[in-house]
Amino acid sequence: MLKHLSLEYILGLEQRYRATLINSLGGFKSVNLVGTKNQNGQTNLAVFNSIFHLGASPALVGMIVRPDSVERHTYENILQTGSYTLNHLNEDIYIKAHQTSARYPREISEFTATGLNEEYKDDFFAPYVKESAIKIGVELKEKIELKINGTILVIGAIKEVYLPANALLEDGFVDLEKAGTIASSGLDAYYKTTRLARLSYAKTNSLPHTL
Amino acid sequence: MLKHLSLEYILGLEQRYRATLINSLGGFKSVNLVGTKNQNGQTNLAVFNSIFHLGASPALVGMIVRPDSVERHTYENILQTGSYTLNHLNEDIYIKAHQTSARYPREISEFTATGLNEEYKDDFFAPYVKESAIKIGVELKEKIELKINGTILVIGAIKEVYLPANALLEDGFVDLEKAGTIASSGLDAYYKTTRLARLSYAKTNSLPHTL
Repeated sequence: MLKHLSLEYILGLEQRYRATLINSLGGFKSVNLVGTKNQNGQTNLAVFNSIFHLGASPALVGMIVRPDSVERHTYENILQTGSYTLNHLNEDIYIKAHQTSARYPREISEFTATGLNEEYKDDFFAPYVKESAIKIGVELKEKIELKINGTILVIGAIKEVYLPANALLEDGFVDLEKAGTIASSGLDAYYKTTRLARLSYAKTNSLPHTL
Repeated sequence: MLKHLSLEYILGLEQRYRATLINSLGGFKSVNLVGTKNQNGQTNLAVFNSIFHLGASPALVGMIVRPDSVERHTYENILQTGSYTLNHLNEDIYIKAHQTSARYPREISEFTATGLNEEYKDDFFAPYVKESAIKIGVELKEKIELKINGTILVIGAIKEVYLPANALLEDGFVDLEKAGTIASSGLDAYYKTTRLARLSYAKTNSLPHTL
């Protein structure tokens, strides 16, 4: 049975119910740990499911930040240093990753609080998560305030990538399942995946086939 | 073995390889069919994996559009009418959904070309996809040009939602697996999911537990 939720119905929902509903409506999402460090050397780690691909050339990622939330420590560190890392979640660390969303005071690093380990690569400023298989070093390029709801679109440029050699396929495709990367939905659900198919580039005169 | 991709290496990649790589780096993504209709009644249907949650209150969704690509018919219809629908993919329709990314001329509707069926609900202008289990009616609120790469952030407000009654749980969580919704990665990969857990709201003095 199909249920219809009208705008009137949605507007009348209790706040937490509505947040849960609307957050899970859009479909599956990526989930990353964002690692940062402030100028005093204090690290921060926060789970984000609002990170998305913005473009390949230049290689850009977008992130939506709510500056009045627990995410503000991450955002402040990014503004201060211009440096952050994206670290994929896997089955071994997703509970610890979720735990980073607790409201720890600024002087407590979520690395310490959750037992995830900082890792530094080359001369990149922000900390990576040792336990993540795919890690991306990002540099802040721009922030755009979305006046419609007070969130910030943070745009970053990919500076370097670490990933398991066997997850990088011949054509550049990253096999996220080989790397153990998991997906999320809503505010609190985590998923393993099973690939249905990769499909060939669509053409008007033929149907796609499995690659 | 961990492989390191430096910025220099990434910049030197052949364009299509780089697009495939960078598109799949961010992790799993939602994938939706966007249904539109122009003022002459010509419909259009296009698969998008660049749609993301922007906020629950008001209920907003963001979408990144590349106006110089096959996506431009969708974008033009949205600008012209302010109306579009988001329709989740499932295992039965993902090949047809992928096929909508072929470069059909404007006068051919991807509904007709792929055999997916238009469905109209109440007085909502844009067509829904009959075969989708979760469908969202959206109204254009704002478009923001991202000068950094010429893409457009299209912001829409959720006006109504259709979903299977049994997929809407007690606390507002939408069980995407019950609805058959699938995930995507990169430009061409589609996935079924298996839930690991929903985790309780994180608190500093305890570890999350499974809901």
